[in-house]
Amino acid sequence: MQSDSRVQPQPDVPALEWHDNHLRILDQRCLPGRLVWVECHDVAEATAAIAEGVVQGSVAAGLVAAYGIALAARRIGRADDWAAALQADFATLAGARPASAHLHWVLGVLGERLRRVRDPALDVPGLLAQTAIDLHASDVESSRTTGRLGMQVIRRHDREQQYLLTTGGAGALGVIRAVQKAGLVGQLYLCAGADADATRLAFWELEQAGLPVTQHTASAAGQLMKSDNLQWVVVDAQRIAANGDVIADVGTYSLAILAMHHGLRFMVVASSSAFDMTLENADDLDPEDGLLKSAGQLSLDVTPAELIDVIVTERGVIERPDQQSIAALLSHQRLH
Amino acid sequence: MQSDSRVQPQPDVPALEWHDNHLRILDQRCLPGRLVWVECHDVAEATAAIAEGVVQGSVAAGLVAAYGIALAARRIGRADDWAAALQADFATLAGARPASAHLHWVLGVLGERLRRVRDPALDVPGLLAQTAIDLHASDVESSRTTGRLGMQVIRRHDREQQYLLTTGGAGALGVIRAVQKAGLVGQLYLCAGADADATRLAFWELEQAGLPVTQHTASAAGQLMKSDNLQWVVVDAQRIAANGDVIADVGTYSLAILAMHHGLRFMVVASSSAFDMTLENADDLDPEDGLLKSAGQLSLDVTPAELIDVIVTERGVIERPDQQSIAALLSHQRLH
Repeated sequence: MQSDSRVQPQPDVPALEWHDNHLRILDQRCLPGRLVWVECHDVAEATAAIAEGVVQGSVAAGLVAAYGIALAARRIGRADDWAAALQADFATLAGARPASAHLHWVLGVLGERLRRVRDPALDVPGLLAQTAIDLHASDVESSRTTGRLGMQVIRRHDREQQYLLTTGGAGALGVIRAVQKAGLVGQLYLCAGADADATRLAFWELEQAGLPVTQHTASAAGQLMKSDNLQWVVVDAQRIAANGDVIADVGTYSLAILAMHHGLRFMVVASSSAFDMTLENADDLDPEDGLLKSAGQLSLDVTPAELIDVIVTERGVIERPDQQSIAALLSHQRLH
Repeated sequence: MQSDSRVQPQPDVPALEWHDNHLRILDQRCLPGRLVWVECHDVAEATAAIAEGVVQGSVAAGLVAAYGIALAARRIGRADDWAAALQADFATLAGARPASAHLHWVLGVLGERLRRVRDPALDVPGLLAQTAIDLHASDVESSRTTGRLGMQVIRRHDREQQYLLTTGGAGALGVIRAVQKAGLVGQLYLCAGADADATRLAFWELEQAGLPVTQHTASAAGQLMKSDNLQWVVVDAQRIAANGDVIADVGTYSLAILAMHHGLRFMVVASSSAFDMTLENADDLDPEDGLLKSAGQLSLDVTPAELIDVIVTERGVIERPDQQSIAALLSHQRLH
C-alpha cells in the first residue's frame, strides 16, 4: 500500500528521544495524521504526557516516568538525601496511571537504585538518567524477545497461516508482528479497544507494515469468531495476580469467554513486571474496586486464569498458567 | 430526581404527530438536550428521517414509512392505478432501513390495502392516511401488550426484585418499564448499544422515569455479569428466522454467550412482524451477507435460537423458541 506520510512506524521502539535536559515524545494521539513532538522538561510535564495518552502503552509510560525522575533530579541538582528530595516526584508519577503495574515496577527500580547510593559525591542525576537509558534499551530488547516467544508458541501449535484477533496493545502487536515476520499471519481482525485513538493508530501501523488486517467494533468479535477460521485471540494485560488471573482493559474478559465458547486459543502478552505477587488472585475483585476503575468508570476487568491458554513475557512462556508455573518463571534470574 | 427539562418522555407513544398534509417528528437525535420537531411533507423527507435516525426504533420507523406513503398519495391526488403510481415511493422507503423486517411488514400492509381497492371513486389518500393512523394506534397498544407479557414472564420466574441488563431498544425498554410498574426492578444496567445517541436518550428516559439505572460501556457487560446478582438480559431483535435464530444489533450474540456462561436468562423482545418465515435459519449467514451489514460495516449479528430463553411479542410469548412454537404463535388470529 502506498502512503505519502513521512511518519514511519517504529513499532519496536517507542518514539522517545532523551536529550539530557529534556525528553521528546512523538504524540501518539496525533498519529497517523500529524507528526507532533511533545517536550517534557519536568515531572509535571512527564506526568501529563502519561495521563493524557501522549504515550499509550504501559512500557512507554514506564519509560516516560523513568526519564521524568531523571529530569527531576537534574533540576534539584544536589541533595543530601535524594530519596527524600524526590519523594513527591515519585508519588506524582505513580499517580499518572495507577492501574499500571509496570509503571510502579519502573519507579521501584529507580527507588532501589537511589537507596543503594552510598557515595555522597556520586552524580545522582547522571546515574538516574543512565538507569532510564538502560531501561529503555532493555525494554526494546524485551519487546523483541516477547514477540519472538509469542510467535514460537503459535508456530508450535500450527505451522499453517493463522487467523488472529486482537484489540491491540503494544505487547500483542509485538507478537503479531513477529508472527507476520515468520509468514504465519493469514488474516488479522483488529477489534476496537477501549481507546479509539489507539485502535486507529494500531490499524494504521499494521496496514503500513503490510499485514492483512481489517478493523471492527468490539461488539463484532462474537460474530467474527463464529464465522471465520479464527485460531488465536492475542491481548495485553495491565496486571497479573499470583494465580494467573489477568487484569486488563475492560472487555478482555468477554473476549476470553467468547474464545472459549468458539474453541479459540487465548494468549495474554505482558511484561514480567505485570505480575503482582501481592495479589493472590483477582477474580473476586469487586467492580467498585479502585484497581478496576478510572474516572469513576469500569476501565479494567478480570479474566480468570482458567480461561487463559498462555501468558507470554520477556522471561518466558507459561502455558495453562497457575501459581506454581508463575512462581517458577519469576524465580529465574532476570536475563538482562 | 428533579429536572428542569420541559420534555417529558412518553415512552409508549413515539413522538409522531399527523397533521393531514404533513408529519411532525420529535427528533430523537437532539433529545434530551433540545426539543426539535422535524416536519416531513413528502417521501424524500420521510425516508431521510428514517435513514438519519430522527426516529430510532423499528416500530417508529415503520410508522414514519406508513405516513410517508399517505403523504405521497396526497401529493399525487388522483390515479387510475395507485399501486403503479406509488411503486417508486414504496421502493424508496423500503431502502431507508433495509434490515428492518418491521418496516417491510408495514409497507406490505399498505400495499395489500391498495391491492384490495376496487371502487375507483374511493378516496385512496384518505384511506392510506387512515391505515397509517390505525397502525399507529395498534402499535401503541401492541407496545403495551408486549411490555405486559414480558413483565409476566419475569414475574413468573421470580417474584423478587430483579437485576436486569439491556442495551436498550424500544421493545426491551417497554418490557423494563412494565417490570418497573410491577415493582420488580432491583437494578438496571444499561450497556451502550451500537448507537451512542440512542443509549444516551434511553438512559435519560429511564432516569426520568425513576428507574434505578446505571450506564456502562458494551465491553463492561462480562464483568457486570460476573460480579452482580444479574438475572435477566433483555434485548430487541431486527429479524427472527423461522427456527428462532435472532438477527439483532451487533454485540447481541456476544451478550447471549455471556448470559449463558453466567447462568442468566436471555429475553428477546420483538414485534411479531419481525418473524421472517422465508428465512429457515440464520446462524449460518456469512458475515459478508447484506442482511448483516450497513455502510460496509457489520451492524447486525445472529444469536442462535438455542441461546434464547424467551421471545416476547405482542401476540404472545415463546419460551425456548423453535420452529414449531413459532409457527404455532403466528398461526393464531392477529388480535388487532
